[in-house]
Amino acid sequence: MSYAAPLADIRFALEACAGFWSVREGGRFPDLDEDLLSAILEGAAALSNDTLAPLNRVGDQVGVTLKEDVVTTPPGFREAYQAVRDGGWQGIAFDPAYGGQGLPRSLMVSVLEMINGANMSFGLLPLLTLGAIEAIDLHGAPDQKALYLEKLISGEWTGTMNLTEPQAGSDLGAMTTKAVPRPDGSYVISGQKIFITWGEHDLAPNIIHLVLARIEGAPAGSKGISLFIVPKFRDEDGSRNAVRCIGLEEKMGIHASPTCTMAYEGATGWLIGGENKGLAAMFTMMNAARLNIGLQGAAVAEAACQKAYAFARERKQGGALIIEHPDVKRMLVTMRAKIQAARAICYATAVAADKGQHAREALLTPIAKAWSTDLGVEAASLGVQVHGGMGFIEETGAAQYYRDARIAPIYEGTNGIQAIDLYGRKILGDRGEEMRRLIAETVDAAKHAHGKIGQRLKEGAAALEEATAYMLAASRPDALAGATEYLALAGDVVGGMLLASGLKRALALPAMTKSLLVEQEALLGYYAETVLARAAGRLPAIKIGAAALG
Amino acid sequence: MSYAAPLADIRFALEACAGFWSVREGGRFPDLDEDLLSAILEGAAALSNDTLAPLNRVGDQVGVTLKEDVVTTPPGFREAYQAVRDGGWQGIAFDPAYGGQGLPRSLMVSVLEMINGANMSFGLLPLLTLGAIEAIDLHGAPDQKALYLEKLISGEWTGTMNLTEPQAGSDLGAMTTKAVPRPDGSYVISGQKIFITWGEHDLAPNIIHLVLARIEGAPAGSKGISLFIVPKFRDEDGSRNAVRCIGLEEKMGIHASPTCTMAYEGATGWLIGGENKGLAAMFTMMNAARLNIGLQGAAVAEAACQKAYAFARERKQGGALIIEHPDVKRMLVTMRAKIQAARAICYATAVAADKGQHAREALLTPIAKAWSTDLGVEAASLGVQVHGGMGFIEETGAAQYYRDARIAPIYEGTNGIQAIDLYGRKILGDRGEEMRRLIAETVDAAKHAHGKIGQRLKEGAAALEEATAYMLAASRPDALAGATEYLALAGDVVGGMLLASGLKRALALPAMTKSLLVEQEALLGYYAETVLARAAGRLPAIKIGAAALG
Repeated sequence: MSYAAPLADIRFALEACAGFWSVREGGRFPDLDEDLLSAILEGAAALSNDTLAPLNRVGDQVGVTLKEDVVTTPPGFREAYQAVRDGGWQGIAFDPAYGGQGLPRSLMVSVLEMINGANMSFGLLPLLTLGAIEAIDLHGAPDQKALYLEKLISGEWTGTMNLTEPQAGSDLGAMTTKAVPRPDGSYVISGQKIFITWGEHDLAPNIIHLVLARIEGAPAGSKGISLFIVPKFRDEDGSRNAVRCIGLEEKMGIHASPTCTMAYEGATGWLIGGENKGLAAMFTMMNAARLNIGLQGAAVAEAACQKAYAFARERKQGGALIIEHPDVKRMLVTMRAKIQAARAICYATAVAADKGQHAREALLTPIAKAWSTDLGVEAASLGVQVHGGMGFIEETGAAQYYRDARIAPIYEGTNGIQAIDLYGRKILGDRGEEMRRLIAETVDAAKHAHGKIGQRLKEGAAALEEATAYMLAASRPDALAGATEYLALAGDVVGGMLLASGLKRALALPAMTKSLLVEQEALLGYYAETVLARAAGRLPAIKIGAAALG
Repeated sequence: MSYAAPLADIRFALEACAGFWSVREGGRFPDLDEDLLSAILEGAAALSNDTLAPLNRVGDQVGVTLKEDVVTTPPGFREAYQAVRDGGWQGIAFDPAYGGQGLPRSLMVSVLEMINGANMSFGLLPLLTLGAIEAIDLHGAPDQKALYLEKLISGEWTGTMNLTEPQAGSDLGAMTTKAVPRPDGSYVISGQKIFITWGEHDLAPNIIHLVLARIEGAPAGSKGISLFIVPKFRDEDGSRNAVRCIGLEEKMGIHASPTCTMAYEGATGWLIGGENKGLAAMFTMMNAARLNIGLQGAAVAEAACQKAYAFARERKQGGALIIEHPDVKRMLVTMRAKIQAARAICYATAVAADKGQHAREALLTPIAKAWSTDLGVEAASLGVQVHGGMGFIEETGAAQYYRDARIAPIYEGTNGIQAIDLYGRKILGDRGEEMRRLIAETVDAAKHAHGKIGQRLKEGAAALEEATAYMLAASRPDALAGATEYLALAGDVVGGMLLASGLKRALALPAMTKSLLVEQEALLGYYAETVLARAAGRLPAIKIGAAALG
């Protein structure tokens, strides 16, 4: 049993819960219709199911190797990457002027879910390239765009983001990588970066590194950081730049994704986005990157859930298939209900981005990232449990999801950092205005929902309202002490609201069958009694205050 | 940083929460005093910290290997096992007539926690031997006791339990291993067993296998299963028995613990406990074995927590140690508070066993097993998260705990099976009588607890009472649908009750310092607002009913 892209669930979450078709409002995306959507989703499903999923296990077992600066990827990865290039998958949501397809980000995001569900290690490569494309698209000079965008959007070249340094962790202000200006306008980049995902590999002829560094004489701390483009091969003459991978991390999971230590030894780089504006440039990319990692959480949860279903449907115990055991059923439906909520949150974030609803996109992003990646770990753990003893045996494959999933709550800003962002930048940023809009939508969804579901949504909305008022009124230390639990509550409630809104919106969508609606309502019913019913119980933890943490 | 046995926390949980000294009531354990307790705990701490913990990482990396029927353990394991033998650690709680020390089981259990916290893979060896000792002690004929007990209790030989077969999983009734009687009273055992922990190794000159098999002509299903002793080397003449390890599982964790496929190819075995009484014999051992696995959960959680504290105290971020970040503090105190609750539940189970309180021991056992092993996974995951990116790198060691911890909710009866046991055998077995006693103790503890803690205990007791009434009244399918959540609620509440009782009892214990009490009360305060406050929110999931699971 391999991964099979869950097209019905994806379409319900995208079209019904996240309100996908509203992206066409105002005449945008005029070519986008039902046929195009189907074609893209089905194409991505075929790529994911047939090409990427079969490489997931071999990627885990063989992993990547480094020898004389060359990183070798597992067998089959070259052909798979070629398939991604051939399909134009890297460029779905980018500017047609540079070869992109100009489609909504929310559509790309559903494609990314499938790619990452099939093969999380592989999926990181297009994810990182997306970040590089966005950086250059948003902050690059015209000649930089001309040089790089087309080849990155086509997937001919790939991209990286170089932030972390050995001594600095998430504290970007402490970085020491140096940039010394040359008379020709370029810079000499020297320093070391760690945890660089797909920093070196054999899948593409060139790799475009986006590197944070400090220009000589720049202010101390985070205000003196600039962003540079450092291509592996220099553009003007194709000569090899002085950047190389000097080490690979031995990780618990995502073995097929090289996590590189990169040495910049007098490499030539070009400033992008203005002197000392590096962090600002990174931040504009961050919402997108964080959402994409949230999707990884939902994706690995889905993959783990599918594997667990397949096992439960064929494994007998005490004369019956184990899927007949109530506790196995419970684990499976827990996974499915929460996955659908996570998917809805992630897709709704992307739809907000497509519609230019910046406040909503900004508010939902940390929730999408943290809530979905926590679910990734939880679902992968449940997936192992459904397998019983076989789940602990590597050959089964359930263990790989458990190991792979664990990175997602950490990278692209730990989930603790997401909680700080939700409180400090988002809730304080607009004094809770956008969150109150979500709460109002939850109250509205409650009115239209059936019986108990409506009641649970109402309770959830009330708890989120009380918690938001607390976060706005509390001292900063007290609010930070409750920030993670606040984010969890927000995810619980917004996830439920989106599922309920989806049921209502689906009535007007001809593609949604009656049986799908019955199934989705059952998932929401389960979610209401197990997740929403516990949401208000988070209030004491949210309000616990800094003193209680010792 | 390595493991350091948390003696103060252990003593608080043992003496104060679990009421250890009450085991002397009725004049039992006359030699047991404060000095002896200290000596044993400190001796076990030294063994764990200095001998076993340093082997934890090498054990994970090197693992075990099988070559020509011989299983080789990692470097250092022979010396470590010799230290366990020399210290007499295997025999703490067994009959002095066979060389044991005749001390309480609850004391042994605190020793086991340390051994398993230091090295979970290694700790399984004494755990399995304990099971063999108990089986022979309870069910063996006098000549069998004479032959085996002394050498097992001294640790000269080790023991195994052989239940699972390739086609049967947890369904023991489906087993096919065959026993054919010989005229001399012995049996010829033929069949294959899988998942046999420490089934073969190079640490002891003989291994005593306890094997479930079906005597020719026995009734079908679980009523036709008998238990046999099958020594690796036969007693009468020291000749090699026809049992061998034909495979080792490639597992996600506990790499230093061999998980063997054992082939019985006409091996000689001796019946123990009567024909077709095999399952009954296994069940009498099961309470003890399940409690011991619960302890493993608490132990690995403690080890993960210590590693996270050490990292947080030395790692800087943004100019401050990361332990100063509220969300890091939150993760650390979450671990500590829940670990102390799990420890208290496990120790209280053992104290009940020591006092012959069978109903209490029986009721607490599935809670101790499942609640503590779920915590093991949760705490190990938090431990990785505290480390940030470093947590995902194998070298750090946090990842090992996350991988190791995952087996404990599965083996010795999955946690789903524990929930069925709690409902079907324990709650239904006495119509909730013992559980109501625990609830009454919780109400009583609430009266003596400070402020909010008392309120949360009261709420928890009320929720547990309501849930217990539901479980008693519900149809079996509906009760089973809520059984896991019911067990979780019971663990939440009983854990809190024991922590609160401990604070009260500690006032009369001279060894408990004021600063320890302040610290433990702070942990309980945190537990009350984060765990007890969410306990009642489990009621809807408990009452969800079979139909909601699809």
